[in-house]
Amino acid sequence: MSSSFGQILKVTTFGESHGKGIGVVVDGYPAGISLKADDIQAQLDRRRPGQSSLTTDRGEADRVTILSGVEHGRTLGIPIALFVANKDQRPGDYQSLREVPRPSHADYTYQVKYGTRSSSGGGRASARETIARVAAGAVAEKMIRHIAGMDIVAWVSSVGPLDVPAFDWTQVSRADVDRHPVRCPHAETADAMAGMILEAKDQGNSLGGIITCVCRNIPAGLGEPVFDKMEALLAHAMLSIPATKGFEIGSGFGGTRMRGSEHNDPFIRKGDRLGTETNNSGGVQGGITNGEPVVFRVAFKPVATIGLEQHTVGFDGKTTVLKAKGRHDSCVLPRAVPIVEGMTALVLGDMLLLQKMRETAQDAIR
Amino acid sequence: MSSSFGQILKVTTFGESHGKGIGVVVDGYPAGISLKADDIQAQLDRRRPGQSSLTTDRGEADRVTILSGVEHGRTLGIPIALFVANKDQRPGDYQSLREVPRPSHADYTYQVKYGTRSSSGGGRASARETIARVAAGAVAEKMIRHIAGMDIVAWVSSVGPLDVPAFDWTQVSRADVDRHPVRCPHAETADAMAGMILEAKDQGNSLGGIITCVCRNIPAGLGEPVFDKMEALLAHAMLSIPATKGFEIGSGFGGTRMRGSEHNDPFIRKGDRLGTETNNSGGVQGGITNGEPVVFRVAFKPVATIGLEQHTVGFDGKTTVLKAKGRHDSCVLPRAVPIVEGMTALVLGDMLLLQKMRETAQDAIR
Amino acid sequence: MSSSFGQILKVTTFGESHGKGIGVVVDGYPAGISLKADDIQAQLDRRRPGQSSLTTDRGEADRVTILSGVEHGRTLGIPIALFVANKDQRPGDYQSLREVPRPSHADYTYQVKYGTRSSSGGGRASARETIARVAAGAVAEKMIRHIAGMDIVAWVSSVGPLDVPAFDWTQVSRADVDRHPVRCPHAETADAMAGMILEAKDQGNSLGGIITCVCRNIPAGLGEPVFDKMEALLAHAMLSIPATKGFEIGSGFGGTRMRGSEHNDPFIRKGDRLGTETNNSGGVQGGITNGEPVVFRVAFKPVATIGLEQHTVGFDGKTTVLKAKGRHDSCVLPRAVPIVEGMTALVLGDMLLLQKMRETAQDAIR
Amino acid sequence: MSSSFGQILKVTTFGESHGKGIGVVVDGYPAGISLKADDIQAQLDRRRPGQSSLTTDRGEADRVTILSGVEHGRTLGIPIALFVANKDQRPGDYQSLREVPRPSHADYTYQVKYGTRSSSGGGRASARETIARVAAGAVAEKMIRHIAGMDIVAWVSSVGPLDVPAFDWTQVSRADVDRHPVRCPHAETADAMAGMILEAKDQGNSLGGIITCVCRNIPAGLGEPVFDKMEALLAHAMLSIPATKGFEIGSGFGGTRMRGSEHNDPFIRKGDRLGTETNNSGGVQGGITNGEPVVFRVAFKPVATIGLEQHTVGFDGKTTVLKAKGRHDSCVLPRAVPIVEGMTALVLGDMLLLQKMRETAQDAIR
Repeated sequence: MSSSFGQILKVTTFGESHGKGIGVVVDGYPAGISLKADDIQAQLDRRRPGQSSLTTDRGEADRVTILSGVEHGRTLGIPIALFVANKDQRPGDYQSLREVPRPSHADYTYQVKYGTRSSSGGGRASARETIARVAAGAVAEKMIRHIAGMDIVAWVSSVGPLDVPAFDWTQVSRADVDRHPVRCPHAETADAMAGMILEAKDQGNSLGGIITCVCRNIPAGLGEPVFDKMEALLAHAMLSIPATKGFEIGSGFGGTRMRGSEHNDPFIRKGDRLGTETNNSGGVQGGITNGEPVVFRVAFKPVATIGLEQHTVGFDGKTTVLKAKGRHDSCVLPRAVPIVEGMTALVLGDMLLLQKMRETAQDAIR
Repeated sequence: MSSSFGQILKVTTFGESHGKGIGVVVDGYPAGISLKADDIQAQLDRRRPGQSSLTTDRGEADRVTILSGVEHGRTLGIPIALFVANKDQRPGDYQSLREVPRPSHADYTYQVKYGTRSSSGGGRASARETIARVAAGAVAEKMIRHIAGMDIVAWVSSVGPLDVPAFDWTQVSRADVDRHPVRCPHAETADAMAGMILEAKDQGNSLGGIITCVCRNIPAGLGEPVFDKMEALLAHAMLSIPATKGFEIGSGFGGTRMRGSEHNDPFIRKGDRLGTETNNSGGVQGGITNGEPVVFRVAFKPVATIGLEQHTVGFDGKTTVLKAKGRHDSCVLPRAVPIVEGMTALVLGDMLLLQKMRETAQDAIR
Repeated sequence: MSSSFGQILKVTTFGESHGKGIGVVVDGYPAGISLKADDIQAQLDRRRPGQSSLTTDRGEADRVTILSGVEHGRTLGIPIALFVANKDQRPGDYQSLREVPRPSHADYTYQVKYGTRSSSGGGRASARETIARVAAGAVAEKMIRHIAGMDIVAWVSSVGPLDVPAFDWTQVSRADVDRHPVRCPHAETADAMAGMILEAKDQGNSLGGIITCVCRNIPAGLGEPVFDKMEALLAHAMLSIPATKGFEIGSGFGGTRMRGSEHNDPFIRKGDRLGTETNNSGGVQGGITNGEPVVFRVAFKPVATIGLEQHTVGFDGKTTVLKAKGRHDSCVLPRAVPIVEGMTALVLGDMLLLQKMRETAQDAIR
Repeated sequence: MSSSFGQILKVTTFGESHGKGIGVVVDGYPAGISLKADDIQAQLDRRRPGQSSLTTDRGEADRVTILSGVEHGRTLGIPIALFVANKDQRPGDYQSLREVPRPSHADYTYQVKYGTRSSSGGGRASARETIARVAAGAVAEKMIRHIAGMDIVAWVSSVGPLDVPAFDWTQVSRADVDRHPVRCPHAETADAMAGMILEAKDQGNSLGGIITCVCRNIPAGLGEPVFDKMEALLAHAMLSIPATKGFEIGSGFGGTRMRGSEHNDPFIRKGDRLGTETNNSGGVQGGITNGEPVVFRVAFKPVATIGLEQHTVGFDGKTTVLKAKGRHDSCVLPRAVPIVEGMTALVLGDMLLLQKMRETAQDAIR
């Protein structure tokens, strides 16, 4: 069950880090949408390794193939299966793992859970699994843009202790974000972040950070009451991404320090709809979008694989010193931007279809 | 779909703030567990209004009735239905809402979503809905304690700007938490929090805060890879609670500022299992519990209903001044503690059953 | 999980034969539909015991209460909970069951499955559980009639070896069906069936039979390819009703003896749509409705509880003679008619909402 | 949603008749089971076209590739993805379909449902989709045989009007079934069936028939009460197979003509468990297996594609004469045997895992 996500727009992923490749099946997608491999490739290229000196050297082109569901460039309303082959596998890098679980990795927990594990690296816990999320997310994005004009842009808002200063993101685009390989749209901060990442890389150390995501042109009414509130689904989606440790929407943790009188978002008139003057709510009220931008932040821990020696114990309980060999990022944030966008698109797409269904039924009644 | 939660241990809730009552059906619960209404009532009493001067005056005893699934004090393995009648309804308090949506409430979004809404208050967005979560959570807790000795304790770790200082929570109990009505186990801070809450109440204003939750004796191996990671399900559960704005596990947002070499949790031997020296991971690695305590924090915004005048606009787009009449808490944190515990129990119970199934199948194979 | 049914329009049932009552939660139902207890009671009255001399004497009025989801006679788009209290319980009738499982009942299989069972009769395997299906089905019917004008009529087409002769059912109504207490619209056959049922009752024996169900004004396009074909969902729904042993749609088992050239349904023009000349398909092609009436038949075995002595063995493996005491029908067919209709409405309602969602999305694209 | 099946053991299929191929993802499968492509290929070979003169000439070898989830010949507990490439595509055969929907095919209903359809043949309604079912079923079978020694054998019990005479199937094996290409274990009837199929082929006509399936060594306790009764899930599974029109378990439709006193299955002692003397129940009581063989029958309509001229109308409503060109079976029954077995294995595997989970939880409680 754990490899599926979504209720109406439902994705199922498969594949390991060092198997034949990574794939995803997107079910519940409407017929008639124009879809080409290039639409998907664009986001995969933002996620793939080896994009810049800031990322891992693993040499994967990560070309996507559409296996089903599309004919003459249009979707048929049936499952769309996507596949990305693994090319640059070096299982030898992982031999030491047989006996020593890597600290803050999934080696130990997978072994306990399954009584076995992939011999070569993280298996399903590997970051390569996120290819499927980015690919499926790109497909979902085509739909929500097409049907409702929705727009999702994420960026790196902090790396380690370096924060981007407050800025007006109402017009920020992916092109703005991509102007710097670190994927922070504030040039000066981006340079400082890049410097810090390269320094950590030299030291064999790693860094965490925060990604901010803003969703614009989101129709009011998306999200379901009680258990499937928009923020609950987004939190689920974000905390399912490897290495994430936190999620906050709107005012988030900082908002807990405000008074109700400061925090409440008064309604104002915006054209022919009601809007709010402030957006501490982050675009959701009672779990349902209110037409304002949905804004949230996701915390990523520093990468667990480091080049420094670590004192730990093996599966046999004996103390040992571990030093990683594999090729890894010292900061995943720049590559995680399209993953956050992809998972967001899956949630918005699912909620859009559910609400379209409800509206149509309700319209038929009146 | 939005009123159900869980995969194997599955709860479905119903009922509105001002209807006949609030109920929940718990399906997938094992047979043979001792269960009495009192087991459930204990947690409901920690949630109910009117417990202390810190909470709302709405006079609800919130007595639970077991409608099905239990005979001779033991569960039958079939759905357990629980019901709590509403008593102290005052729909008159809500008349003004017909024309003016309350800022940062769900009045506007429900109206847009459904084209209608409950005339009297929040309907399913009301905090009374959480009765069902607490009741179902108490049922789940009996199981996880019985089968695996798990233990869940949550407390108020901040109110507005007041934070509890760092302390050793390894032995903290619900009795410790309940010693002060504010449900903060640090006496001095609790007094200050209570003072601040009463002050806000006097001013007709409201406060937010943070709840910390720790889960002990959690077996390694719970949580599912990829989309249903333990932290993803907990985040989903927590962000589905009304008024929450954030979730973080282990080192959380603060951990993003550390280096990998500081953040990694080295393994050490703990009796006959592997443990970790530090717990920045918050008890999960690769989405799966590692046997260390699961620790997380949940952000609650300040209560949206305040006694102060608010400048806003009505559904008709005309500016107006709103002043609330209904009876409401000025800080929900003390009453939210059992809600956080209840939702946690539902997630842990579900993951425990899934993993028990897997282990049994895998044992049968070897 | 086993107590929920449906994907978008989702029902969850609870309650045992001899507990406090039987209930159901209907989630995913649109807002704005007029709904009163009487709408539901009408179908419950067709199911309840003691309607005529043909049915069991258990004296249950089976009055339904709407616990949630409706205000001012209209649905709110949130869960609708319904409850029917049990009144006439006689657990004493079931004392002998502790030691001897009834042949062809669920006493033995429940005991094996759960390691325990309800002391008094069938628990969830009791036919009283079907109250929840009829109640939820009546709610679903309001929607599908309102939105699409769909119409469902079922009747008893055989009792034991007595078959209703072929007749034109294109206009048959529930009033026609209810004209005779046996619920067969062919008067002469109905009389013969009633005679046979009373004779079986006198002998302490029981009878089975077949119910035919026709669904009219079904829009083309309902049902999902591959696993959730319309006929697959109907078969699932029907075989989940206690005492059913078979399902066939359109030509069914008899159609296996025809040649393709006879069995194929040629298209013809019907007004502004395509229809078919014959309807061996039973209204579905490739799992999707084609606009012709959906017609299927459901086989019910003879009631397992009989007044005659049965030679069997107890849980201890020792041979014994069993003679039932409880109050039971000698033929359930007349009371099963609204159950078949109710389950059909749940399937059609779910598929209607899914397809409405798809159509809206597809319309938005073009 | 329609392309997924199962709750714990969950399969998701993709691929069209004339796209790149057919695939399936099997999630929820335990770790540690030995699995090779050959285990799967054996059943695919029984399904593939061109096996004998009785089947279609489409020249597909249907070789399966394991894309993920298996390492060193053992499952890892993560999703197993399987893929079978399409080779022998002749889209030209289908050109006439653009304007004329084939009678009793899915051309018309797909067009209405999606507003578009695969230009070349049946898309997801094609029988090639069943490759995914057979492949996934073979994987499930390995597990249920390994864990519980379960055994599933299906055979052709009728072709058109030719029925196999009653015989003792308690020991019948797949080898017995495969002795004749028609897959009927009764040699004389098999010869007659083959003759009738070849005659229909010569005439450009087609035949239907019935498949009987028996499942042995099924532990008591499988199947879930109320909506997910074993027979309900089997009926769902069977009616989701293309061309099926009916399902009956145990005594089925014939049993409706018996009296309760004849139909009831008295308990007898069988070793250290209770068994039943007769098996009119077909191995299930109250929806739960009782330890007796599970026996059911599935009706298949005559193949819709025939070589004879058919008078019908086009999408434009104008009358026309249609004569099929594509390569098709004149009777699918021999090739449908492994499809029935595969879907049965998926249901049994899912129910086995669910019940294992329950038993373990219940054992932990006592």
